Amino acid sequence: MKNYIDLNDIEDLPALIAEAIQLKKNNDQAQLGKGKTLGMLFFNASLRTRLSTEKAAKLLGMEVMVMNAGTDGWALEFEDGAVMNSDKAEHIKEAAAVLSQYCDIIAVRAFPGLKDKNKDEAEQVINSFKKYASVPVVNLESATGHPLQALTDAITVMELKKTEKPKVVLTWALHPRALPQSVPNSFADVMKRLDVDFVITNPEGYDLDKRITGDTPVVHDQKEALKDADFVYVKNWSSYDNYGQILNSDETWMFDLEKLKVTNNASVMHCLPVRRNVVIADEVLDSENSKVIHQANNRTFAAQAVLKNLLKS
Amino acid sequence: MKNYIDLNDIEDLPALIAEAIQLKKNNDQAQLGKGKTLGMLFFNASLRTRLSTEKAAKLLGMEVMVMNAGTDGWALEFEDGAVMNSDKAEHIKEAAAVLSQYCDIIAVRAFPGLKDKNKDEAEQVINSFKKYASVPVVNLESATGHPLQALTDAITVMELKKTEKPKVVLTWALHPRALPQSVPNSFADVMKRLDVDFVITNPEGYDLDKRITGDTPVVHDQKEALKDADFVYVKNWSSYDNYGQILNSDETWMFDLEKLKVTNNASVMHCLPVRRNVVIADEVLDSENSKVIHQANNRTFAAQAVLKNLLKS
Amino acid sequence: MKNYIDLNDIEDLPALIAEAIQLKKNNDQAQLGKGKTLGMLFFNASLRTRLSTEKAAKLLGMEVMVMNAGTDGWALEFEDGAVMNSDKAEHIKEAAAVLSQYCDIIAVRAFPGLKDKNKDEAEQVINSFKKYASVPVVNLESATGHPLQALTDAITVMELKKTEKPKVVLTWALHPRALPQSVPNSFADVMKRLDVDFVITNPEGYDLDKRITGDTPVVHDQKEALKDADFVYVKNWSSYDNYGQILNSDETWMFDLEKLKVTNNASVMHCLPVRRNVVIADEVLDSENSKVIHQANNRTFAAQAVLKNLLKS
Repeated sequence: MKNYIDLNDIEDLPALIAEAIQLKKNNDQAQLGKGKTLGMLFFNASLRTRLSTEKAAKLLGMEVMVMNAGTDGWALEFEDGAVMNSDKAEHIKEAAAVLSQYCDIIAVRAFPGLKDKNKDEAEQVINSFKKYASVPVVNLESATGHPLQALTDAITVMELKKTEKPKVVLTWALHPRALPQSVPNSFADVMKRLDVDFVITNPEGYDLDKRITGDTPVVHDQKEALKDADFVYVKNWSSYDNYGQILNSDETWMFDLEKLKVTNNASVMHCLPVRRNVVIADEVLDSENSKVIHQANNRTFAAQAVLKNLLKS
Repeated sequence: MKNYIDLNDIEDLPALIAEAIQLKKNNDQAQLGKGKTLGMLFFNASLRTRLSTEKAAKLLGMEVMVMNAGTDGWALEFEDGAVMNSDKAEHIKEAAAVLSQYCDIIAVRAFPGLKDKNKDEAEQVINSFKKYASVPVVNLESATGHPLQALTDAITVMELKKTEKPKVVLTWALHPRALPQSVPNSFADVMKRLDVDFVITNPEGYDLDKRITGDTPVVHDQKEALKDADFVYVKNWSSYDNYGQILNSDETWMFDLEKLKVTNNASVMHCLPVRRNVVIADEVLDSENSKVIHQANNRTFAAQAVLKNLLKS
Repeated sequence: MKNYIDLNDIEDLPALIAEAIQLKKNNDQAQLGKGKTLGMLFFNASLRTRLSTEKAAKLLGMEVMVMNAGTDGWALEFEDGAVMNSDKAEHIKEAAAVLSQYCDIIAVRAFPGLKDKNKDEAEQVINSFKKYASVPVVNLESATGHPLQALTDAITVMELKKTEKPKVVLTWALHPRALPQSVPNSFADVMKRLDVDFVITNPEGYDLDKRITGDTPVVHDQKEALKDADFVYVKNWSSYDNYGQILNSDETWMFDLEKLKVTNNASVMHCLPVRRNVVIADEVLDSENSKVIHQANNRTFAAQAVLKNLLKS
């Protein structure tokens, strides 16, 4: 593995999942990262990603340096050829090259603006780090993808599945703020790579980018989609077609006990943070079916498997 | 010890004080915390608590992850059953459970609002962490108590006392801002548990919660109270009866050389930060009688004794 | 070495440079700092200084605690005898003494206000830490100097020089914001201590403090100064005589390919962050002549050499 920008950077997904599950059982890798440093750069807030990746690196024996990009350091310029006479003090060319002097792996979180689809899809921040860094770069959630979350989700489904080929449903739910498509994009992407029966359900107007979902069935009737599901992944996202917009206020998409009953006693997943009683009802989150904490725990081992592979190559 | 939320969590106070003093003399505990992680979550500013607790954990061989709760992560919802459709992105139920996946001990600082006595006394933040975390929780100063400071203070008095049963006086002083009662509450609480002659002095209207001070004499004449004191603990607090209010602007309560002379050449203590020439005069803080730096140093060993006990159980 | 406040704290500059270059080649010092803690306090933003110093300390086996002074802790009072009844919660006397309890070395960054020359030259923040701390203090860039950068620069010139006594030119360039004189001050100071042919070029009105530049030639014709230079250090600074002012908007001082051609195929240096196409043109920064990344990498070893000397004494 050279970088971990998106799921295409994974050479052997089943092997990586197996490795993460093995690390979870028997974590004795503190020599591999000795004397190596992970630099984590946050352009946006983070709880799980921040702590689980820091934890993963330390389990590998690495040192970790964390920076809040906006406040601790300098405002970055990403445009090639820019005449830097306004508010940006440092160009990504220098920032990435300098971080590569101090860090053995650089990890970056940078959310989309959700205003300009082309700009977000260009993935300027993470791709600029990849371009100008001389060390591996890890995506801690970028404008259009969250591959560490997707690897976690794949691990969780593989761990918890009770049938050979489980039915996995990704369902939209309402949210008061316009959210990125990064998590559902990467979840759809990783599910397509596993031997599961994968279905997406969302209201009209909320279909994800077809280049990512491919031939995954998209069903606009939530109850029909949820029928006999073994796993339900609940997540809000803003419209892709009407880019970054909230199109409706349909509270009926909240995942509650009534909908859980339609499923095959499904395991319920969410990347967190989750809005209780808006996205998922208390009665589901507080039930045995909720696997959101189990899933959050797997973040550590997904990150560790990725960092381990980057350190080895 | 299961948690360290308040002083009742201490099973044997003299033994814990002795252990801290022993750690101060001979600090060789770097194996106990190996492979363990302390997560520190700050809802408010901190200097001593932050650095001494981090130092203590590292002296035990622990890894430490620090987060500023407001800015690094997500705004937390604490109400049970809340419909989370406004500004709070994550519920304490998930936050505490997730942090418990990444950390072996969680430490939390959350000051009171000083507006609503009932709300502050409910100790929603620290109690919610205790309720929903599956690992031990440490109070880094909550709405109504600061037990790590109190343990430090007990250590300092026991270390420096020259008589079997010293006279210890907690005296109020003026401060330009309305401050919590957490430090004086916990100091009163811990002094009651030691073999000392303990007196509180404050202006009328500033009496602390009687459920905490119990039968401790409260004297409204400062000079009378200070007479023959072996230890003077100076501290401002806002009114408990007129909850969170500053009732007067009586600068005569500042602790200066004239007042020191009334005492038995007392050791002067303060939790810091201290407003010079408002709470304590320069002439006292810069004298041999001031033990505030000695006291601050003891923060490390108080924290270490608590963390050590939590790790062992 | 007792502190590292300015270059006068260095006892033997050539030896310190040689030690840093040796550390860069063969870094095996992880025992020296074991059990020791570096506390880093930032009153201003930092990328290179923050990460390189943290990296350096960890290479020495030290623990590192980082605080953003303004937001994580308390506002500090620096005036002696102040009656602290307004916005400053803690006096430097306590802050420095307390940090000295938790840290074995304290490192501080505090930029100038650029309003009051006398105040900035008094170096109140770093000097107060030096005065009140009981452990060594390291300057991470103060109002008037940046000695870790200067040591880095000296290392870089000594590493890359091709002749016995190279010609080194410090040239001013335009910048949209008023910047401190700390970097050019310390660069001039360190160059005077090396066996180089050192020249400064800047527009009229931008001459640096003569007490620092001494008998260094100051040439106001940039092209004349650059002629046959082996090293060009490009840097903006605000006026010293018209203290903190930007006097002109002369874009012709930008260092571009045309100016590089006047030199003896010079190595181009800058402390970073650099405004591309304002201070230095893309065509220079992206050429083989640019040594800015090499220079940034040396920050680690300069810091490590200083910390190592402080630990040993």
